[in-house]
Amino acid sequence: MTATAPEALDYAVDNCTIGRAMAVLGERWTLVVLREVFNGIRRFDDMQQHAGIPRQVLTDRLARLVEHDVLRREPYRLPGERTRHEYRLTPKGFDLYPVMVALAAWGDRYLADPDGPPVTFHHVGCGAPVRVRLHCDDDHHVEEVRQVAPRPGPGAHRRGPAQS
Amino acid sequence: MTATAPEALDYAVDNCTIGRAMAVLGERWTLVVLREVFNGIRRFDDMQQHAGIPRQVLTDRLARLVEHDVLRREPYRLPGERTRHEYRLTPKGFDLYPVMVALAAWGDRYLADPDGPPVTFHHVGCGAPVRVRLHCDDDHHVEEVRQVAPRPGPGAHRRGPAQS
Repeated sequence: MTATAPEALDYAVDNCTIGRAMAVLGERWTLVVLREVFNGIRRFDDMQQHAGIPRQVLTDRLARLVEHDVLRREPYRLPGERTRHEYRLTPKGFDLYPVMVALAAWGDRYLADPDGPPVTFHHVGCGAPVRVRLHCDDDHHVEEVRQVAPRPGPGAHRRGPAQS
Repeated sequence: MTATAPEALDYAVDNCTIGRAMAVLGERWTLVVLREVFNGIRRFDDMQQHAGIPRQVLTDRLARLVEHDVLRREPYRLPGERTRHEYRLTPKGFDLYPVMVALAAWGDRYLADPDGPPVTFHHVGCGAPVRVRLHCDDDHHVEEVRQVAPRPGPGAHRRGPAQS
């Protein structure tokens, strides 16, 4: 059996934006940190204690998310204590909401306990559950993921000669 | 300045489906492997050479994705060669498409080269670009992520006493 080589092999991956996104988000704890902030948990000690993230890992991940402008540090001060910082989502961070909702939907479907998901997402306006949908610019709701196909985009460039 | 503690602190995270999803997907290379398969690149040597993934890392990530039923192994045989396997998405793997599209959209917005994204996603039926949208069950398109709020779901349970 032979088959034609997939077209994607002809294109370089050095500008892949999924790869770049995962270089920012690319391991479990980073998403867990973001989950905490999306859920309103913004302070180091709260996150550390609530999510059970090792302190050094949490320090590293918060620094990386601030460096990449996903989170910003905001000072606060409790009476009689020193100034501390809490972490808030930047607009770039808020734009990760669809990623989080899509990831939670997949997890809820395949990895939830029998009693169901621990968190659900709701529309503030009407209270109805919020879901992620694939939708095309001609205004079709894409029901089936097999109805989606990737194409080389404006930034696609051909690979150089194969390296061995 | 004082503030009420976020409600999310009262709930346990041991059943968090985002955390569980990231335990499956939780580092950069896993998503890069999935990107290859979504783009039709299904063979070990093709992935290794195209994406530049270290062989041992690729072996590990493929094994983990097969173990979690995200990919399945399909035998194939080129003339005169031994039987090899290629990797195909299972239904559980296909259901990660919205996560990939959401992640690519975020990467395209913030991390693309000036000439634009390397890949775009299109509706097979009409050719129009496909996007991820947040949509509520009352049929509202959720334009603003600030219009989404998390709530404890059916599987939420209160945390035990705080551990120090």
